[in-house]
Amino acid sequence: MFHDFKLANDRPVYIQLKDYLKRLIIKGSLQPGQKLPSTRELGLLLSVSRNTIISAYAELESDGFIYAVHGKGSYVAATAAPPASAAPPCEIDWPARINDYARQAVELDRMKRGIRAGRNAISFTSIAPDEKLFDLDHVKRAFLDRMAIEGNVLLNYGYAKGYKPLIDYLMNYMEHKGVDLNGKDMLITSGFTEAFDIVLSALRRKEGGSVICENPTHYTAIKNLKLSGFDITGIPMERDGIDLIELERALTERTYDCAYLIPSYHNPTGIVTSPEKRSAAMRLMARHGIPVIEDGFNEELRYSGAHVSPLIATAGRGNGVVYLGSFSKVLFPGLRVGWVLADRRLIDNLESIKRSRSIHTSTLDQSVLYQYLLNGNLEKYLKKARSEYKRKYEWTKRCCETYLPYRKLSGDGGLHLFVEFDKPFDTTELLDACSSQGVIFTPGDMFYTDGGGRHTMRLGFSRVKEEDIEKGLQIIGRTARQLMG
Amino acid sequence: MFHDFKLANDRPVYIQLKDYLKRLIIKGSLQPGQKLPSTRELGLLLSVSRNTIISAYAELESDGFIYAVHGKGSYVAATAAPPASAAPPCEIDWPARINDYARQAVELDRMKRGIRAGRNAISFTSIAPDEKLFDLDHVKRAFLDRMAIEGNVLLNYGYAKGYKPLIDYLMNYMEHKGVDLNGKDMLITSGFTEAFDIVLSALRRKEGGSVICENPTHYTAIKNLKLSGFDITGIPMERDGIDLIELERALTERTYDCAYLIPSYHNPTGIVTSPEKRSAAMRLMARHGIPVIEDGFNEELRYSGAHVSPLIATAGRGNGVVYLGSFSKVLFPGLRVGWVLADRRLIDNLESIKRSRSIHTSTLDQSVLYQYLLNGNLEKYLKKARSEYKRKYEWTKRCCETYLPYRKLSGDGGLHLFVEFDKPFDTTELLDACSSQGVIFTPGDMFYTDGGGRHTMRLGFSRVKEEDIEKGLQIIGRTARQLMG
Repeated sequence: MFHDFKLANDRPVYIQLKDYLKRLIIKGSLQPGQKLPSTRELGLLLSVSRNTIISAYAELESDGFIYAVHGKGSYVAATAAPPASAAPPCEIDWPARINDYARQAVELDRMKRGIRAGRNAISFTSIAPDEKLFDLDHVKRAFLDRMAIEGNVLLNYGYAKGYKPLIDYLMNYMEHKGVDLNGKDMLITSGFTEAFDIVLSALRRKEGGSVICENPTHYTAIKNLKLSGFDITGIPMERDGIDLIELERALTERTYDCAYLIPSYHNPTGIVTSPEKRSAAMRLMARHGIPVIEDGFNEELRYSGAHVSPLIATAGRGNGVVYLGSFSKVLFPGLRVGWVLADRRLIDNLESIKRSRSIHTSTLDQSVLYQYLLNGNLEKYLKKARSEYKRKYEWTKRCCETYLPYRKLSGDGGLHLFVEFDKPFDTTELLDACSSQGVIFTPGDMFYTDGGGRHTMRLGFSRVKEEDIEKGLQIIGRTARQLMG
Repeated sequence: MFHDFKLANDRPVYIQLKDYLKRLIIKGSLQPGQKLPSTRELGLLLSVSRNTIISAYAELESDGFIYAVHGKGSYVAATAAPPASAAPPCEIDWPARINDYARQAVELDRMKRGIRAGRNAISFTSIAPDEKLFDLDHVKRAFLDRMAIEGNVLLNYGYAKGYKPLIDYLMNYMEHKGVDLNGKDMLITSGFTEAFDIVLSALRRKEGGSVICENPTHYTAIKNLKLSGFDITGIPMERDGIDLIELERALTERTYDCAYLIPSYHNPTGIVTSPEKRSAAMRLMARHGIPVIEDGFNEELRYSGAHVSPLIATAGRGNGVVYLGSFSKVLFPGLRVGWVLADRRLIDNLESIKRSRSIHTSTLDQSVLYQYLLNGNLEKYLKKARSEYKRKYEWTKRCCETYLPYRKLSGDGGLHLFVEFDKPFDTTELLDACSSQGVIFTPGDMFYTDGGGRHTMRLGFSRVKEEDIEKGLQIIGRTARQLMG
C-alpha cells in the first residue's frame, strides 16, 4: 500500500496526495473504518514532509472522505458510493434515444468531418485570423485594467442583455457607421452563431419557414437554417452583389419569412455589394415587407475604396434590418462575443431567449473586449492587420491569376478569395488530387443552397505563408490543368 | 463648424477626433467632395497638436471616409450611405412577427420581472456567491500564466467539445468522485443552462415529451422544460430526498422520456438526498429504462458529514446518467463554464449541436478556470468559502428557528434554506408586506411544477451580512405572525 504514489506534475504535493488517497478510498483499496497511517509514518514512507501529510488529511476530512478521532488518528469515512453490485447498471440505448434534430446536427457538421491534412500541408481551408498578429500585451493590459476596476463584478453574474459598458460602446460604434439608433436596442451574444440561432428561433413563420439569401452563402447559416427547418431560396451573385432581377422575381413569386444577406466580403465569394445594390435590395425588401438579417461579417477588413454603409444604415429610420455583428474574424475568435442590433421590441424578446439558452455571455470576454476597444487598441490592430492581410490578399490574387485556369475569380478584400472553374469541373476531385500533394482548400459546393457549385472553391489565405501561397497555388493550378485534360 | 468638438473621455484624442469627424460626415454636415481644413488650421482651431490631426486624418482615410489629393489636401469621400429619402424605410411590425416560443420565453422570464428592492433593502433572493470571497489575485495569476503559455491559441478558434486540458482535468475530477469513466465522454458548455438546453434538444420523445423530477425544483429547469414543450411530473420531496413510493407509482403509471434530479443541496429545498435514496431511485430508473439528467449543482458546498457520491457514480458501469456540472455557484458565475459527462455516443451528438449553437465556449473562461484549478486554488478557495458560508448557514438556520413561525425548515448546506409555513398561507402577500419594510425573498410557488407551494419561500443568505440576516428574519417573522392573525 502507498508504494505507487508518484508525483505526476507540478501541482502542490498535498493536493496530489489528497487525490491519490481519495482514489484509494473510492476504489475500495482503503475500506470504511480503516485507520490511516499517522502523519509521521506516512511522511517517512512517502518521503514527503509531515506538514504535507497533515494538509492532505485536512483536505480529505473537509471533503468528507476521512474523519479524525481525537488522540487516536484518522479513519476512512463510510462514503456514499454503494458497491457497484447494489444496483443493476442502467443501460440506455442512446443511439435510439437521440432525435432527428441531433442526428441532422451531426450530418450537417462539416467541421467534425473536416478536411484533414498532414502537419506540413499547405492549407487554404481556414478563414480564421492569423494568430501571429494578435497583440497579446494589449489584451493582457485590458484584462488587468478591467480586473482592477471591477474584478469582483466581472466574476459574478452579469446580465442576459450584455455587459452595459460594452453595449454603450458598440451602440456608439454602430452610430458611427451611420445607423439611426432611434427605436433600436442591442443584445450581446456568444458570437455570430448564437445571435443567428436566437434570431431564427424567435421568428414567426408561415408554412414551416422560408428564407431568401445569396447563393452561395455562409455554410453555418445554411446549416442552422436547415436545422431550424427553413426552406432556403438562394439568389445568384453577380460581380457587385446579389442579382436584383432574380431577387425581384423570387420576391414576387412567393413570400418569405426573412432574408439573410452578407453585404461585405461575402462568404464565400468575397464580394462587397455596391452601394447602389444595397439601396435597391433594401427597397425591394421594404416593398415586400421582408425583414433582413444582415451579417456584418468582416466589414472592418476593407483594404481600399470608400467606406460602405451597412444595410441597417441604408435603412435609415426603418426597423427592417436585424444586424448581427462580430469581431471574430477581425480580432479574436476565441473571445466569443457578437451583437444583435435591431428593433427594441425584438431585442426585448431575444433577451429572454438568450437568458433561457445560456444566462449571459462570458463577462470576462465582454469586459476584456470592451477595455481593449476603450484603450484604442482596435485602431492600432486594424492598421497592422489590414496592411498584413492586404499584402497577402494581393499576393494570393496575383498567384491565382498566374497559376489557376479559372473562369472567374472574386474577392474584394477580407481573408479569402473564391474561384470558379469552367463547368463541368469537380473541385472535390481536385481536392483529392491536391491533398495527396500536401495542399488543401474548401470545395465550394457546401456553400450552395441548391446543390450547385461543384466547379468552385474557396481559398482562405490569412494563415498561409507567402511562399506557401505561391507553392500551393502552383500545385492546385497544375493539378487542375491535368484534370481538365 | 468644429466648434462643438469636446474631449469627452480618456480615450486617445486622435480617436475622439476621428469619431467626431466621422459623425459630421455621416450626418451630412460635411458633404462628399468637401475639402477639410489643413492639419495646421484644424490644429489651431481645436487647440490640439498637429500630429493629432494628422493621425485622425490618416485613420479616416484608412476607414474610407476621406481621401487625400497630393499637394492639395484632404476631401470627404462619397460614402455609401444614400440619403434617407432614397429608400422608403422598411417598417416591420415586430410584435406580429414574433412566434409563441419567443413570447413564452418572455412570459417565463422571472428574472426580467424580478423582485426589485431599494438600495438598502435586505435581499434574500440571490443564491449567487458572495463576491467579497473571490480570490482575484489567483484569477489574475491563472490568466497571466495561461496567456504566457499559449495566448495566441486561446484567442483563436477553439473546439466545440471544449478546451482539451480542461476536459482532461474535469474527467479526472469526476473520476475522483467515484465515476466509472468507461464509455463516457465530456462536452464543455457555457454553464449549466446551455448544457441542459442542449441535452433536452437532443432527446427523442414520445407524445411531445415528458419528464419526471422533484417537486419543487430549479426554476430555470422548469422554464426550459416548458419552453421545450415537455410535460412535467413533479414528485414530492421528503426530508431525505424524493418520495420513493410516489416515484414508483408515477413510473408505473406511465412512461417518461427522462428524469431530472438535483441530489445535492437541492434547489430550492436545500436537501441532500441520502445515499440509500440515491441507490433506490437509480434502481427504479434502471428498471423503467429512464435516462437521468443529474444536476451536480453545489455538490462542493458540503459543510459536514461524509462525502456523498453523485448519481452518475452510483450508476457504476451504467450509462443511464447524464451529469451536468458547474462551478458557477461554488466559484465564479461570471465564468460561463459547465460540463456534460455522459455516454460517449450521446456526447458525440451534443458536440455537433453545441457547434451549431455557439461554435464553442469562451476559451478565455475555460483556460482561466483550468489554470486556476491546476494551480491548486480551488482547494484554498473552498476552505475559505465553506467556512464563511457554513457560519452564515448556521446563523441563518438559527435565526429562522428563533424568529419564523414555520412548519418545516430544510437545507443541509449550500447557499440557501427553504421554509414552509402552515397552509393556507401566501408568501407572495408576505413578500408584499415585507418589501415595504425593506426585506425581500423568493416566494416558493415558482419552483413548483403543479401550481403549489404558495406557503413556501426560499432564503438565499450568501450575500447578506450577518446582522442583516437577523434583522431581516425578525421582520419576516413578525410580519408573518401578523398576517397569520
